[in-house]
Amino acid sequence: MKRIESTQNALVKHWKKLATSKKDRDKSEEFLVEGFHLVEEAIKSEGTVIHLIVREDVELPTNWKTDNLQMIEVTKAVAKELVETEQSQGVFAHCRQPNYSEATTDSWKKYLFIDAVQDPGNIGTMIRTADAAGIDAVILGKGCADPYNPKTVRSAQGSHFHLPIVKGELGDWIEIVKSANIKLIGTGLQNAVDHYSVGPLDEFAIIVGNEGSGVSADYLSKSDEIVKIPIYGKAESLNVAIATGILLYAYGKK
Amino acid sequence: MKRIESTQNALVKHWKKLATSKKDRDKSEEFLVEGFHLVEEAIKSEGTVIHLIVREDVELPTNWKTDNLQMIEVTKAVAKELVETEQSQGVFAHCRQPNYSEATTDSWKKYLFIDAVQDPGNIGTMIRTADAAGIDAVILGKGCADPYNPKTVRSAQGSHFHLPIVKGELGDWIEIVKSANIKLIGTGLQNAVDHYSVGPLDEFAIIVGNEGSGVSADYLSKSDEIVKIPIYGKAESLNVAIATGILLYAYGKK
Repeated sequence: MKRIESTQNALVKHWKKLATSKKDRDKSEEFLVEGFHLVEEAIKSEGTVIHLIVREDVELPTNWKTDNLQMIEVTKAVAKELVETEQSQGVFAHCRQPNYSEATTDSWKKYLFIDAVQDPGNIGTMIRTADAAGIDAVILGKGCADPYNPKTVRSAQGSHFHLPIVKGELGDWIEIVKSANIKLIGTGLQNAVDHYSVGPLDEFAIIVGNEGSGVSADYLSKSDEIVKIPIYGKAESLNVAIATGILLYAYGKK
Repeated sequence: MKRIESTQNALVKHWKKLATSKKDRDKSEEFLVEGFHLVEEAIKSEGTVIHLIVREDVELPTNWKTDNLQMIEVTKAVAKELVETEQSQGVFAHCRQPNYSEATTDSWKKYLFIDAVQDPGNIGTMIRTADAAGIDAVILGKGCADPYNPKTVRSAQGSHFHLPIVKGELGDWIEIVKSANIKLIGTGLQNAVDHYSVGPLDEFAIIVGNEGSGVSADYLSKSDEIVKIPIYGKAESLNVAIATGILLYAYGKK
């Protein structure tokens, strides 16, 4: 097995950039994941892992299929370079950002559109929830946190490897779902009906929006229906990831 | 207006402890909130604010009713002592932890019971969601994060001042709701029905549990019904705050 001992090694520098810089993740179309659960999910996702990185004192589970993977052992000092927090399980995967194929989009019937949600933890939780609810694809519009931010990846608990996550132009995607006669559901407060009055639905695209300003007026004006979750108590609003969970499970019921 | 300039002032030291130490919050039954929104909610909650703390360069909104409050101006150096992060709006409220009255519990019909949820952000989001969903009281059992942790208070966005948050013994509360004939709904994977098959309900107590291990077997055995949220995709589970939101809005529908 290859071994890297220097924190100055070019690969180590690259991995560190993947952990800390959106620009470098965008340019390389790669990202870094940490911890046994996430690395295991990455390994199961064929063609995703470029390098499996293992700290010298760490033993891998015997049931991991690592035969076809390029495995690299690193020193504790190198492993420490790759994490922001002190706690680390000492196992990493250097991954390709999954690429969806245009050919597959025809089969997508349930979408989550995210408009300018800025908190990486919210984005990650929404990806995880969309996965659980059986959504076919998550489309991230302009102004969203990077889905490959380490915080987002951690919050999503491996769902990055389970469903397509597309960075796109929501305006274009609205055209796509409209031409496929898929119901477009905006979320907002004005001209909105209680969310309970819609669905369940076999096909839908839900648009959720920015933590402060909500969904852009332009997208709402194109929606077939605008829904709001009723507030029965004194809270001003719901967290956007919570609202997304409520809606996906209200409309995605099978 | 009183003014404090020294970071060594005894009150400043007390406030700092409230921001950083659970032990000190428990002993004093007080806590500290920061930022315009939270402080405004605290002020609206009668009898809650002990001191309104304002950094020397901050102007309070003119519509705040501060006549009956003890207001203290502090220097930038003092204000900096009270926050963990660099970003601060420079306005704080030193608050009493709200105390529910035994007399009011008879009117409670909708409960959220939380069993050993450890993440402060999850607890805060769950309190906010319970408030939105019109829940009458949130009961935090053993092993839960402190609801007065600054992270929890921030995530709850002021809901601490809207509904009773009780640190209690879940076993005792289970007896209370059972003797009131309120349906007790556990969440778990074994012997569980899809959550869609239950509710909406006028009266219920939902128990949600620890991020890793779920709800204690003892509490599940006492539940009238155990429900699970179906996983349609490949995610292993839902975040506990998301699951709570889905259930509260499924059963709390009016």
